[in-house]
Amino acid sequence: MSDIVYDIPEVHETSSRHTLAVVVDNEFGVLARVIGLFSGRGYNIESLTVAEVEHDKKLSRITIVTSGSEMVIEQIKRLLERMVPVYKVNDLTVEGAHVELELALVKIKGAGDKMKEILRIAEVFRARSVDASQDHFIFEVTGTSEQINTFISLMSPLGLTEMARSGVVAISKGKKK
Amino acid sequence: MSDIVYDIPEVHETSSRHTLAVVVDNEFGVLARVIGLFSGRGYNIESLTVAEVEHDKKLSRITIVTSGSEMVIEQIKRLLERMVPVYKVNDLTVEGAHVELELALVKIKGAGDKMKEILRIAEVFRARSVDASQDHFIFEVTGTSEQINTFISLMSPLGLTEMARSGVVAISKGKKK
Repeated sequence: MSDIVYDIPEVHETSSRHTLAVVVDNEFGVLARVIGLFSGRGYNIESLTVAEVEHDKKLSRITIVTSGSEMVIEQIKRLLERMVPVYKVNDLTVEGAHVELELALVKIKGAGDKMKEILRIAEVFRARSVDASQDHFIFEVTGTSEQINTFISLMSPLGLTEMARSGVVAISKGKKK
Repeated sequence: MSDIVYDIPEVHETSSRHTLAVVVDNEFGVLARVIGLFSGRGYNIESLTVAEVEHDKKLSRITIVTSGSEMVIEQIKRLLERMVPVYKVNDLTVEGAHVELELALVKIKGAGDKMKEILRIAEVFRARSVDASQDHFIFEVTGTSEQINTFISLMSPLGLTEMARSGVVAISKGKKK
């Protein structure tokens, strides 16, 4: 469109972490396409959760935590918005205050003398025992990803043998958009 | 192999719900492939959660709730086990006792006279208020999918405006396999 050659300075953009709430048609090919959009372009997905939307079983809500430069994040949002089965993309990180939590189930082989320490840490993190036998506990714990990471690193030397995490679930503090 | 023609009776197999724990390489193309395996064949995914495995950031654990006839479930497991980046497939439903929980964040517009009822239901379900303003609450609630469904249906007429669910997180009660 123009002969002017811009001398574009090299930009070392910092990568930032964004939490996107994406409302889509509740069909499973859709999830495959949304994930394909990321993996095909080498975009990072740190966490992904998906479930039906309240009141409307025909829609699903996918919460995706991704990271990249502002340019990459904008590109991801544009591509998502252009996909036919996508109804709405909200960037919770940009839109302001929101709550982000994760659920983990953590199995710990409860050895005798470590028991007291295990129960003390569980109390601090408001972890609830959902199963206990002679040789193990299963704790349910919720918190930010950082809190879950800390809980795991404290429990690891005390006999953590297995765990399952949900990934990040997020909701804005403001009015529904 | 044989000339005998078996008179196979028509089987109306009932569909059952299975929770699979699938350990895979922690690369995002892998999630796309696992989901593609389901969507490409029209297999149902009721819920999917994914997160890194403890101690080993190179592995991810995907919890998938699917339903189908026993034949379909066996086929799904075989196909998953054959995928190169899949390390392990555990069918928690077949292997015995396990814990299945889900996390939901639920936003409720707290109108004056409904407040008491909202707080009473929250207490029954051990829901914890993680944000409260003049016009809304955000509750964190964990439970089985059925419990979460009940919580939502009770809160819906009281001003539920938005929610995000994690999908099912599951762990076996037995020793790690």
